[in-house]
Amino acid sequence: MKIALAQLNYHIGNFEANTHKIIEHLGKAKEKGADLVVFAELAVCGYPPRDFLEFEEFISLCEQAALKIAEHCTDIACIIGLPVKNEQLAGKDLFNAAYFIENGQVRSIVRKALLPNYDVFDEYRYFEPATSFECIHFKGKKIALTICEDLWNINNNPLYVSNPMDELILQQPDLMINIAASPFSYCHDDERIVVLAENARKYKLPLLYVNQVGAQTEIIFDGGSMVFDAKGQMLDELPYFKEAIGLYEFKDQHIQHLQPLEHQPVPDIEQIHDALILGIKDYFEKSGFKKAVLGLSGGIDSAIVCALACRALGAENVMAVLMPSKYSTDHSVQDALDLVKNIGCQHEIIPIKEAADAFDQMMAPAFHNLPFNLTEENIQARCRGIVVMAMSNKFGYILLNTSNKSECAVGYGTLYGDMCGAIGVIGDVYKTQVYQLAHYINKDAAVIPENSIVKPPSAELRPGQKDSDSLPDYDILDQILFQYIELKKSSSAIIAQGFDEALVRRIIKMVNTAEFKRYQTPPILRVSPKAFGMGRRMPIVGKYLS
Amino acid sequence: MKIALAQLNYHIGNFEANTHKIIEHLGKAKEKGADLVVFAELAVCGYPPRDFLEFEEFISLCEQAALKIAEHCTDIACIIGLPVKNEQLAGKDLFNAAYFIENGQVRSIVRKALLPNYDVFDEYRYFEPATSFECIHFKGKKIALTICEDLWNINNNPLYVSNPMDELILQQPDLMINIAASPFSYCHDDERIVVLAENARKYKLPLLYVNQVGAQTEIIFDGGSMVFDAKGQMLDELPYFKEAIGLYEFKDQHIQHLQPLEHQPVPDIEQIHDALILGIKDYFEKSGFKKAVLGLSGGIDSAIVCALACRALGAENVMAVLMPSKYSTDHSVQDALDLVKNIGCQHEIIPIKEAADAFDQMMAPAFHNLPFNLTEENIQARCRGIVVMAMSNKFGYILLNTSNKSECAVGYGTLYGDMCGAIGVIGDVYKTQVYQLAHYINKDAAVIPENSIVKPPSAELRPGQKDSDSLPDYDILDQILFQYIELKKSSSAIIAQGFDEALVRRIIKMVNTAEFKRYQTPPILRVSPKAFGMGRRMPIVGKYLS
Repeated sequence: MKIALAQLNYHIGNFEANTHKIIEHLGKAKEKGADLVVFAELAVCGYPPRDFLEFEEFISLCEQAALKIAEHCTDIACIIGLPVKNEQLAGKDLFNAAYFIENGQVRSIVRKALLPNYDVFDEYRYFEPATSFECIHFKGKKIALTICEDLWNINNNPLYVSNPMDELILQQPDLMINIAASPFSYCHDDERIVVLAENARKYKLPLLYVNQVGAQTEIIFDGGSMVFDAKGQMLDELPYFKEAIGLYEFKDQHIQHLQPLEHQPVPDIEQIHDALILGIKDYFEKSGFKKAVLGLSGGIDSAIVCALACRALGAENVMAVLMPSKYSTDHSVQDALDLVKNIGCQHEIIPIKEAADAFDQMMAPAFHNLPFNLTEENIQARCRGIVVMAMSNKFGYILLNTSNKSECAVGYGTLYGDMCGAIGVIGDVYKTQVYQLAHYINKDAAVIPENSIVKPPSAELRPGQKDSDSLPDYDILDQILFQYIELKKSSSAIIAQGFDEALVRRIIKMVNTAEFKRYQTPPILRVSPKAFGMGRRMPIVGKYLS
Repeated sequence: MKIALAQLNYHIGNFEANTHKIIEHLGKAKEKGADLVVFAELAVCGYPPRDFLEFEEFISLCEQAALKIAEHCTDIACIIGLPVKNEQLAGKDLFNAAYFIENGQVRSIVRKALLPNYDVFDEYRYFEPATSFECIHFKGKKIALTICEDLWNINNNPLYVSNPMDELILQQPDLMINIAASPFSYCHDDERIVVLAENARKYKLPLLYVNQVGAQTEIIFDGGSMVFDAKGQMLDELPYFKEAIGLYEFKDQHIQHLQPLEHQPVPDIEQIHDALILGIKDYFEKSGFKKAVLGLSGGIDSAIVCALACRALGAENVMAVLMPSKYSTDHSVQDALDLVKNIGCQHEIIPIKEAADAFDQMMAPAFHNLPFNLTEENIQARCRGIVVMAMSNKFGYILLNTSNKSECAVGYGTLYGDMCGAIGVIGDVYKTQVYQLAHYINKDAAVIPENSIVKPPSAELRPGQKDSDSLPDYDILDQILFQYIELKKSSSAIIAQGFDEALVRRIIKMVNTAEFKRYQTPPILRVSPKAFGMGRRMPIVGKYLS
């Protein structure tokens, strides 16, 4: 039998577009001679649908879409993910499920058992875990179909007490298929290959795996669907960060015509670069917008975001706004203009002095000659926020936020000022990684001006200000942050690694007291295993290491 | 035996304060002659600790605090909630548990089985559900101790497939104790009484129930701890919205010396009033702040928030900032001043004309004479945001957000303008309820000026603007919103109730397209069963009814 894997980019809740795309790919697979097409987990509605799942109408629309798809499955079968109702009284209302559709009919329903409920995942919020398992029967073969996490209890994963494949293997299946919505992080591709290969090896069965591709607000699916032989050797790997369809012949218990191949590891920074571009692109396309605006300071963060936005949307759709204040250095404007010239995007120069002065005058009676402090710095940052939001409102540009992860972590940013934006492009990229991104972007031609890369980082909100006045070197800062945020190490464990005790305590305190700011920041494109946002849920009035 | 119920206000992660308070109440209970004191669910660390639970150091601190508490339990026993490690390899790392401490030792550990994972709850994110159940033995009696949700499968609750009390009853306990962290909503107190009474009746056992009190950012615990006899009759009810301790004698299988009493229902609006005051008070106390600032427009929303803040923090700690623009009517300033006079808070008048004009001039070259539109309206709202944030930065005042739930729902508000703030005071209170609150606040004396109540609502961002220009009457709007948000009804179901079809579709579309705004708003004090924020998780780039 010939099996097609359809690695597609869905749009949450956009039943019309998803159904159309699925039916279109049924047609393409038919043309290629496929007997069965496999679509991803929750393909019908997109992943994650979140609390849309709590609306009965949404579930009905999923069912209607699946039935419409079934009408097109008269001479081809398909496997497709969708939420289905739990018909039992006890337990959550829904299952995370897959339909096996043949001859226009739903022949089997497979339900997910291992429900991820960590980091960005909330599946226990909606779904009841499956407790019984049945192979699918197709063309005289038995297929052990599982959904994403169901294959992830391979090494006694302590999260789970059961293992669906251990049940399914008792029915002596001929091959395994796994449908997934497995989001990108720069280390997740390697983990995924290991887990899938181990499953194939353990159960001595070929394995076909299909993942989603595309971004849904902050969560980026990277594709990379794969095929393994019964020895756990990879036979094929679909591209990352784009749609693709693969066709495989399963015959005599083997995937035919393919030799084992080696996964070619891609450097993290290249993956992050590609993920961010897809993240920006899909945010705009799925929101129905075309044009972006951002504040361009001459510093490295906004330069990177500008370059990524131009690659994602086209330079003609990006408006960079230079907003010098009285504390901006001359070279800042020049560095920003150099970037604009290199990259060919639109730009405006709108100095903020008039507005900042107006606020100083307006506030004077209430401020009673109190000295210049953070207040006036924040006023400048917020004037810039107003300017870029005015550009957004007047012309329909969508504002890109340019805060990096190091800043977001320690709260080095002005709420309602430089923390404005519809989507945080590099909020999950540490400052040290931002420099790596700059070098990667510049690998073929100078895009990011050298001066933006080499000059000491500064917010330029008071004379001679440098990031290093209030923060340690980013090399040190990022290491401490990584230990605390990604690895969840205790302060004592971090100190034991040789970092200065007072510094570690100060940094962790800064992270924890900045929780109120992060609560109000835009969604952040997730590229690491632990991004700020839905995947990291911290109390605000909590008093722990703060 | 004499059992004390300690209904206390904890602070998430503040081990020093929580431990001190618990030990202090052990002492108080001893003085009253108690043999056993019962503290709430997760009392040691506060509820909800969220991802602090993922830090091993945090779990160790919980254990250390419990052991310190145990040292004080030499002549009194106690039951206290805390997270404990799951010693098994399989399953989540933790249990939501309770220690039974006697003679300075942890005698038993009870684990929670039914883990809420809906609305604001995420317990499956951290905890493994218990599967075995043992009564506690104390002074020759068997106590069936359960944790919060464990008693909530009384009516075949479809969320759960098991029922801990059905197991525990087989061990023939003498009484039931339930420790809870059950948050307030204006309908939850009644539900709670029904569920607890039914448990007492079903298992024919007296029931002692202790809840937390106090607010943790957006979640407000209302207390209302209760005691029931074996017939399900309520014998005692501790106060709502304040700390309290109750002492009960259990002898001859009965709670002694108490007659059945009737729960005195409190009107919803009075409960909401008290909850919001506690919410404001605890946000400030637990964050270490004393003083609040807010923009006072002369409209009803900011008037209500100002009045509530003065009741929570003292009028001397509240700074109201009047920020008239060229479109503000004379009576707006007067209405705001009337409130200030009635209430005795501080105030400043800072007109925003200078700043708004400065922006108009600064933007003119980029705007190319495009006509006045929403952009200029938003500039004004954002200038106000800068002013109040400047007051906050300069003087350490914390900004209160004054958006109501109707506005938040339909996105009628300016991001980074009137949507600024550290905490949303009435973001879970529909506009029609805001009017009810005004009347309730005015019940003994005129606080909210009559004119703020009776005049048509307006944002005053362009000449003659009224809310009714772009929104239906709030009476209609709020009914549609309630059906969609609280009840999750489909558009067709709402239309079938007799509402105008085009209007219903327009309103739901407004709600869904405003998701990106709500993502960036402050946490909102939760008083309804479905508040915006952590309890309602919607995709942003989703395209469903939008």
